[in-house]
Amino acid sequence: MLKMECNGFSRCQKQWLNPLHSNIILTTTFCMKTLANGESITMSLAINFDDVIQAAETITGIVNRTPILTSRTINHLTGYEVYFKCENFQRVGAFKFRGAYNALSRLSEAEKAGGVITHSSGNHAQGIALSAKLLGISATIVMPTDAPQSKMNATRDYGAEIVLYDRQVKVREEVSAQVGAERGLTLIHPYDHPHIMAGQGTVALELLADVPDLDILVGPVGGGGLLSGCSTAAKTIKPNIEIFGVETETSNDWWLSFQQNERVHIPPPDTIADGIRTQQPGELTYPVIRELVSEILLVSDKEVISAMRLLLTRLKILAEPTGAVALAAVLNRLKVTPGSKVGVIISGGNVDEELLANLLQST
Amino acid sequence: MLKMECNGFSRCQKQWLNPLHSNIILTTTFCMKTLANGESITMSLAINFDDVIQAAETITGIVNRTPILTSRTINHLTGYEVYFKCENFQRVGAFKFRGAYNALSRLSEAEKAGGVITHSSGNHAQGIALSAKLLGISATIVMPTDAPQSKMNATRDYGAEIVLYDRQVKVREEVSAQVGAERGLTLIHPYDHPHIMAGQGTVALELLADVPDLDILVGPVGGGGLLSGCSTAAKTIKPNIEIFGVETETSNDWWLSFQQNERVHIPPPDTIADGIRTQQPGELTYPVIRELVSEILLVSDKEVISAMRLLLTRLKILAEPTGAVALAAVLNRLKVTPGSKVGVIISGGNVDEELLANLLQST
Repeated sequence: MLKMECNGFSRCQKQWLNPLHSNIILTTTFCMKTLANGESITMSLAINFDDVIQAAETITGIVNRTPILTSRTINHLTGYEVYFKCENFQRVGAFKFRGAYNALSRLSEAEKAGGVITHSSGNHAQGIALSAKLLGISATIVMPTDAPQSKMNATRDYGAEIVLYDRQVKVREEVSAQVGAERGLTLIHPYDHPHIMAGQGTVALELLADVPDLDILVGPVGGGGLLSGCSTAAKTIKPNIEIFGVETETSNDWWLSFQQNERVHIPPPDTIADGIRTQQPGELTYPVIRELVSEILLVSDKEVISAMRLLLTRLKILAEPTGAVALAAVLNRLKVTPGSKVGVIISGGNVDEELLANLLQST
Repeated sequence: MLKMECNGFSRCQKQWLNPLHSNIILTTTFCMKTLANGESITMSLAINFDDVIQAAETITGIVNRTPILTSRTINHLTGYEVYFKCENFQRVGAFKFRGAYNALSRLSEAEKAGGVITHSSGNHAQGIALSAKLLGISATIVMPTDAPQSKMNATRDYGAEIVLYDRQVKVREEVSAQVGAERGLTLIHPYDHPHIMAGQGTVALELLADVPDLDILVGPVGGGGLLSGCSTAAKTIKPNIEIFGVETETSNDWWLSFQQNERVHIPPPDTIADGIRTQQPGELTYPVIRELVSEILLVSDKEVISAMRLLLTRLKILAEPTGAVALAAVLNRLKVTPGSKVGVIISGGNVDEELLANLLQST
């Protein structure tokens, strides 16, 4: 179901051949407004399906084609047919490598030579660090002092330089802008960047290639890079798919923004899901997600921990807290037709061993 | 490399068409001795390739076709191309379901009606319990008092009855024989049973279908059901594959038996790898493994824990201690040609959360 028009824009559709299956016609939606003088304005979103296809062409063979796992136990518990897209098996342990490699590949030679900078709670940092290493680009990463140690170590191991800042005192965007300007580095925003968004969309492209008759897609939403890219891909391939974004209760900037129909800013959230501790929906990601996503679901940190444990003890796979929020929502919040085929994005699997040990001991 | 002849028997070969790929000719090896009077005796092993194929036909669609995972990090660490056959993703969390379902399917109607009994440290118990439930057979499981709580709970959840015994005082074979006789139950031995061995062999059948040019196969060996079945399948499909069995240092009954060329009995071993705490190679499994397996490798419990952690933090998958012994051997003991394609069987993933939490905290 696509959203109603906003600001006088109405939806238009363009049809074209699916580059994955040339006998299938795809439909892309965009927004158009007719002015009093008869002219029309098109409100284009930051990315379209073609950007996702181009990203797929760029990153194929470099990224892991991650497997889809299923579990009779989870199907029994939820009453749905659940398909897990396991981006915890992705290089650097999270989907972030997709967008990072796509974005760095598309830099000019001068930008590549000058080096890149980004700010990240961790997985985007690792994605940029590894992509930069593979492409021979120098990378500087601005990270909060309380980022998981495992993520800091991994980022350093890939050869990137880390600049630390205090998340309670400084704004990361300002730190990276300042350091980037001083050193002449190109900023690669972790989500508000068309090439990042398009790269993350390849997750849904692969999922729908493997499970073409998916009814529902559920994924975590922090900055919105993953969800905007995936909804662009999924809604084009299968216009009647319903998409849900998931946040934790304390990290509810998207939920509030959907309620108030504008980008709401919240204080630094305290949640176990470190990958979605964003304070405001992205400028580029918000219009895409507002247009294509049905609803934002909220789950508690406790439900996230239960979902992590279920993934570990039943599916035998390790998801980081953010990687388990979509399953937490499917277990506790999602109300769709029983028997629906539900795609769940496990966004990453990078957890500090100490945090994991504590989670397993707290019952 | 096949083993030299023993007891005057020499190797003979029979060629036949591969039922998986009808244009490939397979070779089965068996042992023959010519007597003074010109007659010959064939020493047949408990199972042959045809038994594994029949098992595959029986269990296909019921067992999970488990995925093969790879990891650039592990390849880098070992210098090999490592292919993990993930039986931790199998139903009941371990390969044991394969043999159990195969064995119960082949019982007579009278045996099915009478019910079954078995003894197991856990995974075979769960395999029998679930298979019995699926096939409408009643199951009684003899388990040691110190079996992991998670395995006991899972066995009970499948509807089986548990009879406990003290592993330091009683011999499990005697307990199950006694209870079985009293109640008129058919004993399904956890490994010394042709249908169990053949069922477990389907692990190698699938692995070689997915990675046909495998050079090396490494798996844990406890009773020998998995390794005997897998070596029967692998050596028939690819006669020049080299197979290694792995035990922990304290649980070295197979290693000693290979040294002394006879089935050696050891005291109850104290090892973290609860799935391979057997005290003597099986009567039926030993001749197969002695014939087809190159060498038994020993690893320490500490190396097993490191391998478990590596699987969890890098591959993001949970292996139980026994499921990690083969990787421990590949990391620390295996010495084969660099760049070899090495198949590693992750036999299961059933770990108590408490044990896991302790392992993660002990650095």
